[in-house]
Amino acid sequence: MAMFQFLVALLLVRSLIGGRAHSHKMPITLDQDADRVTALPGQPLVGFNLYAGNVTVDRSEGRDLFYVFAQCSNDTYGTKPLVLWFNGGPGCSSIASGFARENGPFQILPGGSSLIINEFSWNAEVNMIWLESPTGVGFSYARLNTTANTGGGDTRTAEDAYNFLVGWLGRFPQYHGREFYITGESYAGHYVPQLAKLIVEHNSASPLKINLSGYMIGNPDIDNYWDQTGDIDFHYSHAMISTETYNGLKANCNFSDENCCSTRCEEFFATMNFEIGNIDYYSIYTDRCIRSNAKPMQSRSWTRKTPTDRGMRARYDPCSEDNAEVYFNRPDVQLALHANTTGVIPYRWTMCSNVLYANWTDAPQSMISTYHYLIAAGLKIWIYSGDVDSVVPVTSTRYSIEAMKLPVSKPWHPWYDYQQVGGRTVVYDGLTFVTVRGAGHQVPLLEAGRLLQVFRAFVSGKPLPGAPF
Amino acid sequence: MAMFQFLVALLLVRSLIGGRAHSHKMPITLDQDADRVTALPGQPLVGFNLYAGNVTVDRSEGRDLFYVFAQCSNDTYGTKPLVLWFNGGPGCSSIASGFARENGPFQILPGGSSLIINEFSWNAEVNMIWLESPTGVGFSYARLNTTANTGGGDTRTAEDAYNFLVGWLGRFPQYHGREFYITGESYAGHYVPQLAKLIVEHNSASPLKINLSGYMIGNPDIDNYWDQTGDIDFHYSHAMISTETYNGLKANCNFSDENCCSTRCEEFFATMNFEIGNIDYYSIYTDRCIRSNAKPMQSRSWTRKTPTDRGMRARYDPCSEDNAEVYFNRPDVQLALHANTTGVIPYRWTMCSNVLYANWTDAPQSMISTYHYLIAAGLKIWIYSGDVDSVVPVTSTRYSIEAMKLPVSKPWHPWYDYQQVGGRTVVYDGLTFVTVRGAGHQVPLLEAGRLLQVFRAFVSGKPLPGAPF
Repeated sequence: MAMFQFLVALLLVRSLIGGRAHSHKMPITLDQDADRVTALPGQPLVGFNLYAGNVTVDRSEGRDLFYVFAQCSNDTYGTKPLVLWFNGGPGCSSIASGFARENGPFQILPGGSSLIINEFSWNAEVNMIWLESPTGVGFSYARLNTTANTGGGDTRTAEDAYNFLVGWLGRFPQYHGREFYITGESYAGHYVPQLAKLIVEHNSASPLKINLSGYMIGNPDIDNYWDQTGDIDFHYSHAMISTETYNGLKANCNFSDENCCSTRCEEFFATMNFEIGNIDYYSIYTDRCIRSNAKPMQSRSWTRKTPTDRGMRARYDPCSEDNAEVYFNRPDVQLALHANTTGVIPYRWTMCSNVLYANWTDAPQSMISTYHYLIAAGLKIWIYSGDVDSVVPVTSTRYSIEAMKLPVSKPWHPWYDYQQVGGRTVVYDGLTFVTVRGAGHQVPLLEAGRLLQVFRAFVSGKPLPGAPF
Repeated sequence: MAMFQFLVALLLVRSLIGGRAHSHKMPITLDQDADRVTALPGQPLVGFNLYAGNVTVDRSEGRDLFYVFAQCSNDTYGTKPLVLWFNGGPGCSSIASGFARENGPFQILPGGSSLIINEFSWNAEVNMIWLESPTGVGFSYARLNTTANTGGGDTRTAEDAYNFLVGWLGRFPQYHGREFYITGESYAGHYVPQLAKLIVEHNSASPLKINLSGYMIGNPDIDNYWDQTGDIDFHYSHAMISTETYNGLKANCNFSDENCCSTRCEEFFATMNFEIGNIDYYSIYTDRCIRSNAKPMQSRSWTRKTPTDRGMRARYDPCSEDNAEVYFNRPDVQLALHANTTGVIPYRWTMCSNVLYANWTDAPQSMISTYHYLIAAGLKIWIYSGDVDSVVPVTSTRYSIEAMKLPVSKPWHPWYDYQQVGGRTVVYDGLTFVTVRGAGHQVPLLEAGRLLQVFRAFVSGKPLPGAPF
């Protein structure tokens, strides 16, 4: 099996050399055919093909990255872009969040028994890949050096993702040459620009060209200093913490120091967490998931249908992570997805790997210089921000972007999603910033319709609607 | 009729003199009986009595204030407090907002054909009066000096409200001596402390004692300087306006000047309004009411029932004002309410009087000295703030309260509504501040359940729950 894969990969890498391929005339490879998902258990009928499988990114350590690929459901002429999605963490699964809960074609019903159509899936617009990255996340696993599953870092993650892309485009040569975009959220604020930079560098140095057109990231980690400064400003201005604690944090925490923080600063952080209380930090105004059998809020939130069912409580299922954890641990689901085919992954599939998170190294303090590099390289770069996330809040993202000191080409203005303000946007030379009104950290989960407008504008290169329509 | 009322009033004022009355043993007066609302059109069966009518507050100008009174539905021993509610504006109707949409016993269904029970009505806890104040608002009208309906000011409003109370307690002597609280929201931040001060003054000077125990106000106007400073801070920190506009407002607007603002400041205000876009300023993350026939958001918001119906869109009806305007203009409703009985009110009943708002005078810059007076008088004072209102935002209210420089007796901490954080609270010597998480300006409309917890704690004198329950 390994040797066969190797031969096919060789053949396909050769087919990629020499510029753009004629996408829809390319042959379907044997590995591509093997990755075809006939049907996911409980799946409704759809008009596009789904693929899933492993791409080996390092043979010596047996490092395989697992992906799911949904063909664009409206790709009549075989010209729609190819888009890669990363969740963050580091250590969180792009299958669990991206594919199964955010911008994928299906959503998992409670109990994990079946799937329904997600009417806001991005594969209505583009061909979408969700990548479990790095090894140790979800179904991505290093078979021969298992320490690679319990720790990671930015550089290896970017290199593995690049090797994944080369391998995947070898397996799916009909998509080579398509407009290619990288997307993601949260700690993918590191993954996405780092991978973009690696592609730009390889494109200029090697004969294999990847047609990278740009990237878009939501609520991204950009710069530790501004992220943390914006975080405490957000907590204070959103009435989550006391004035005393805010002043204490400002006076005692040195966020420009990588080894922040002093004991006094840590004490104020502890007070801050107490003062905020037990909320969903990722969506500060919605209900948090209550998993115990004490469910008064849950039942109030989900069963009441009278006009007195008011306010802004979450209308998404805050416990939908549970559905994914049930579903992706089903043997029939894994079989259908060609996941864990070697049977060597010793743990259950989980949303996020805490051990990977805890052992993360090699994370630069700031991505700002990488942004400058990629702006200079001419990429289309969009950053969006769900404005009620307190983990990477909109204040942090604004501070980081403003620290880039880019000239404004179209000043701050509201954008509309039908009759309602979807958020606000400002266009800089080289970067577009978009807020999504009322959305938490996982914008494609919490304001899926609004973000689909943003995604369409990003891909099409059209401005966001500046008036109701 | 007038002479008869006068005689009854005389009799009852005499009965009030000399301290507390034995509430549930007092006789039912003839006027009280005349104010009994047999049933409102479309009303479901309830287990309490409803009253409505006019109380003359100035005979020479024929100034009548209209009220609706809902007896407490759990007042077995006749000991439950009496609570008065004011909406703000100035110029907005307490019947429209308070009684019919916020904390009253019913809510009006779309079309204005019938009423349903509001499960969060405050009259489950107390005896509630909603007062149309001043004349020119709703069904309150000056018959003999109609200029009093097109302009107003704080001092007369407070005096009229005091005279209303005396008259009303004369008509309902069984409630005299009960614990009495004044409540309201928004510009009632002026009405409530001003009426409270007048009661304290009259209580010490005259034989008629009103058993005022305290007051509670939501998103109140307190101090023009801090309100406006907090407003632009809120807009900036909530990503509603650009950094440039924020800095321009800070540099060019002098909020400590009553005649703020310079032309340059006004220009920045115009830019601010453009940048924010067409949202509901009173609840910045929910849908605004779309009244035209272009209703894509409306239908999306109200009809979708799948799990993809995500996010934080309003689950209350943002057009519920329309229901009230239909309902209270129905002749059968007015007849049932004993409203506009003289038939002299020349205009339709409306939510708010714009002419009154435009001609408002006599509004002090700050209520802070009044707070100090009332804290010294020993009143129980609570201020709550829905934290996603941009009209009197939580930042403004915090700044105003902090400017009072009260010692903290119980520091900032979260409070819980069942399993979820309801908001945060801090107890000062003499004043309790409570935020209501995710609520806009009209907190009893937008987070009714959470605010009912706050109201119960306020009335009972118990602390808010500091842990999930």
